[in-house]
Amino acid sequence: MMKLTRSLLLSRILSSEKLLVGKVHDVQEALCLHSLLSRAGMSTTGQRFGAGVIHCFFSVENPVPRIFAPYSIYKGKAAVCVDPILPTFTKMDSGHFRVDRKGCILLTFWPAIGERKYDWGKKQVFALSATEVGSLISMSPKDSSEFFHDPSMKSSNAGQVRKSLSIKAVPDANGYFISLSVVNNLSKTTDRFVVPVTTAEFVVMKTACSYALPHIMGWHRLTNPQLGDGAKKSSKIDPQLLDLEWDK
Amino acid sequence: MMKLTRSLLLSRILSSEKLLVGKVHDVQEALCLHSLLSRAGMSTTGQRFGAGVIHCFFSVENPVPRIFAPYSIYKGKAAVCVDPILPTFTKMDSGHFRVDRKGCILLTFWPAIGERKYDWGKKQVFALSATEVGSLISMSPKDSSEFFHDPSMKSSNAGQVRKSLSIKAVPDANGYFISLSVVNNLSKTTDRFVVPVTTAEFVVMKTACSYALPHIMGWHRLTNPQLGDGAKKSSKIDPQLLDLEWDK
Amino acid sequence: MMKLTRSLLLSRILSSEKLLVGKVHDVQEALCLHSLLSRAGMSTTGQRFGAGVIHCFFSVENPVPRIFAPYSIYKGKAAVCVDPILPTFTKMDSGHFRVDRKGCILLTFWPAIGERKYDWGKKQVFALSATEVGSLISMSPKDSSEFFHDPSMKSSNAGQVRKSLSIKAVPDANGYFISLSVVNNLSKTTDRFVVPVTTAEFVVMKTACSYALPHIMGWHRLTNPQLGDGAKKSSKIDPQLLDLEWDK
Amino acid sequence: MMKLTRSLLLSRILSSEKLLVGKVHDVQEALCLHSLLSRAGMSTTGQRFGAGVIHCFFSVENPVPRIFAPYSIYKGKAAVCVDPILPTFTKMDSGHFRVDRKGCILLTFWPAIGERKYDWGKKQVFALSATEVGSLISMSPKDSSEFFHDPSMKSSNAGQVRKSLSIKAVPDANGYFISLSVVNNLSKTTDRFVVPVTTAEFVVMKTACSYALPHIMGWHRLTNPQLGDGAKKSSKIDPQLLDLEWDK
Repeated sequence: MMKLTRSLLLSRILSSEKLLVGKVHDVQEALCLHSLLSRAGMSTTGQRFGAGVIHCFFSVENPVPRIFAPYSIYKGKAAVCVDPILPTFTKMDSGHFRVDRKGCILLTFWPAIGERKYDWGKKQVFALSATEVGSLISMSPKDSSEFFHDPSMKSSNAGQVRKSLSIKAVPDANGYFISLSVVNNLSKTTDRFVVPVTTAEFVVMKTACSYALPHIMGWHRLTNPQLGDGAKKSSKIDPQLLDLEWDK
Repeated sequence: MMKLTRSLLLSRILSSEKLLVGKVHDVQEALCLHSLLSRAGMSTTGQRFGAGVIHCFFSVENPVPRIFAPYSIYKGKAAVCVDPILPTFTKMDSGHFRVDRKGCILLTFWPAIGERKYDWGKKQVFALSATEVGSLISMSPKDSSEFFHDPSMKSSNAGQVRKSLSIKAVPDANGYFISLSVVNNLSKTTDRFVVPVTTAEFVVMKTACSYALPHIMGWHRLTNPQLGDGAKKSSKIDPQLLDLEWDK
Repeated sequence: MMKLTRSLLLSRILSSEKLLVGKVHDVQEALCLHSLLSRAGMSTTGQRFGAGVIHCFFSVENPVPRIFAPYSIYKGKAAVCVDPILPTFTKMDSGHFRVDRKGCILLTFWPAIGERKYDWGKKQVFALSATEVGSLISMSPKDSSEFFHDPSMKSSNAGQVRKSLSIKAVPDANGYFISLSVVNNLSKTTDRFVVPVTTAEFVVMKTACSYALPHIMGWHRLTNPQLGDGAKKSSKIDPQLLDLEWDK
Repeated sequence: MMKLTRSLLLSRILSSEKLLVGKVHDVQEALCLHSLLSRAGMSTTGQRFGAGVIHCFFSVENPVPRIFAPYSIYKGKAAVCVDPILPTFTKMDSGHFRVDRKGCILLTFWPAIGERKYDWGKKQVFALSATEVGSLISMSPKDSSEFFHDPSMKSSNAGQVRKSLSIKAVPDANGYFISLSVVNNLSKTTDRFVVPVTTAEFVVMKTACSYALPHIMGWHRLTNPQLGDGAKKSSKIDPQLLDLEWDK
């Protein structure tokens, strides 16, 4: 029943005539992108090291195989990995396709729990929209950026969870501090992660995000309209997605 | 009969021996690209919101499925969306392909008609050529650009509709004003749209347009000559395209 | 017999033990790339205007369809078009592929012979190597570059034809002059073309050439090793190529 | 038996619970990437010139055809070639793929042994990780970078072979010196290569490496998850790889 309530809520949000258009994207991110990735198969605590590769996450069931190729940065107090999430497309009655769920660059943070040990179970995610990626890739060595997300925006829990991502140049200009703070008034918890990144690591992030930007916007599909990545029927909304976000 | 007149007109334009070569591109844009996109399926007034995605336009019938992945910016007085349109190719008798109709970056503007309500029926479009995209992507934070188009250029209506697109840095250097003005002497109307964009939004536009530039030039096809996107027989000109432009 | 002589000459050049390695590329360009494109189907004088597209050239017979998508700039005295030419690959006995003939960015110039009329029959070409493209794309608004080619280098006609391409910033920094000079001591002719290009046009050239650079190097094939573009058996050298260069 | 010992060693390294995560990448590079490329088919001394293309290396047997498209720079004392190596992917039980062995940009140096003669048998390689590529592509005209690798790190031979790559701007800012030094305490040998590169050559390296960076990270696969390049079953580790590294 809980599930039904949430489905109705989402339906109301997405079809609202009075919908704040400029904020639809945030709802999209908050409800869909975050939730898609937030808990599926990632509830175990501990590290997953295999042949030098750390899996950032596993996706929910998806007929199209996914690729996990995160760029990971491990530092003393916490780690962060950067992963592009492609948009999904809906086939319209005309036979054409439109973007259904927007893509993003997903940042996943998790804390160190000892020397070179990280607790995957305590991770938090932050999904950068195309415009936020625009901010990141245009940062000069002395710039700072800060982004705020409310994953429950537009729901009755609006304002209960506040996430802020901060990217600040280190004073001597040899790198950046990337920090995520998540204040959850429902669970009365606050998580804070700080990962210092070198200039070289930040250049990798910027170069890779610049490459990914047209892809998360869906523009890569213009030249390959029939690619199978993520296209689905528009009427099929996976109710499990709602649960995932709700449970978070 | 009207249709026939226009077909003859277009034929005369496109095959003219005295054609101003440097302006062919403008005619191409004005007659073909603009018209391709201008009215097909977009005559209803109002908003189209679906799962957070606004469709900028629907194309005329096309055997190759199209992808709609506009980058949209909604502001208080108006909205703008940015969409790459790929070139079409013609197969030559030799079996090789050449660009038939050039690609462009299509900017579509439409006005706000209330708080977060936009009137899709009053939209206007402006198709940036490759060289105009070159201007846009090379703009530094203090630059301004202005472009002028005459969609009826080379026809008997030349000069009757004047479009000008202006991109101006905001004095304090934290963004740009993107303005479109359309003066139509035939219908005695003037439309003007102003959309303020942030630096981050402009970076997304520049990065995505830089990515798209080789594609609208057709260079992406060099590595995939047999891609099916938009190739067609050169002799087949859709007469409906002429109607669309004429009616505008 | 003439043909045979030239074939032997080329064989000797290409298999020479004492070959000047750093210059092999020039021979490649001079003998293969230039000649591939120099005369095939382009001997008629006059203009070829079709639906607003000027074909820069037609290739010699090739089982893989080619794409003609030149970026053309028409000015008062001359025109230039920019076209990427992909490398060809040879399948080795191991089943792997290696670059056989390097790619280039081909610049084709042709003179104006009246108001907006150009003489395609008097064209001249200049093939930029990867490193020369590196020079071009790194030019700042006040830089100049000059390149020299000898299409007959390493043959008995070495030094008889000298080509120089010059790219010079216009003093007021609002564009560039691109000039090609071809001095042919065999035919006692000198051709000189000057095309002024705007900053926006030069940005298009730089952006498109930056996009094309990894492709002319063959790096795009790394991700698609089985693409059919231009792979051929290494032992098959088209003798017609030699004729074309010789006749020039 | 030797082979078995080494297999066990590698297994221990790769599955170690106390593994220094931040260094796993180095082990990866040192053990896998270097060794993949180090000796297979490259043990003969001398030059391999074919139609102007020098093969930098041949890979070990691989069901997916590889492409050899190195960017080579030949100078008086030594030569260097730059080659991207894609990551390999492992299909997981879920049907999805994850990066198995990371990609890199491989630099191969070999010395001149006479006028325009190079000794391929004395080559040395250095594999740049994604982050090291980030350093390289962000170098301004006056910057310098230095990288240190230990190909035997984590093995009992740790510290016995030390490689350092240095990229230094030439004082008058018209190029760079790229130097590789390999000190091998086991064989009591020291190899040192210095290749001066021009600004244009360095721009090609930077542009091509920027293009390649998302590919060596595996992000190109996001849009083509089913591409066949390098995917393999995770359990199949080629024991020959171990031999290659051990013998080096």
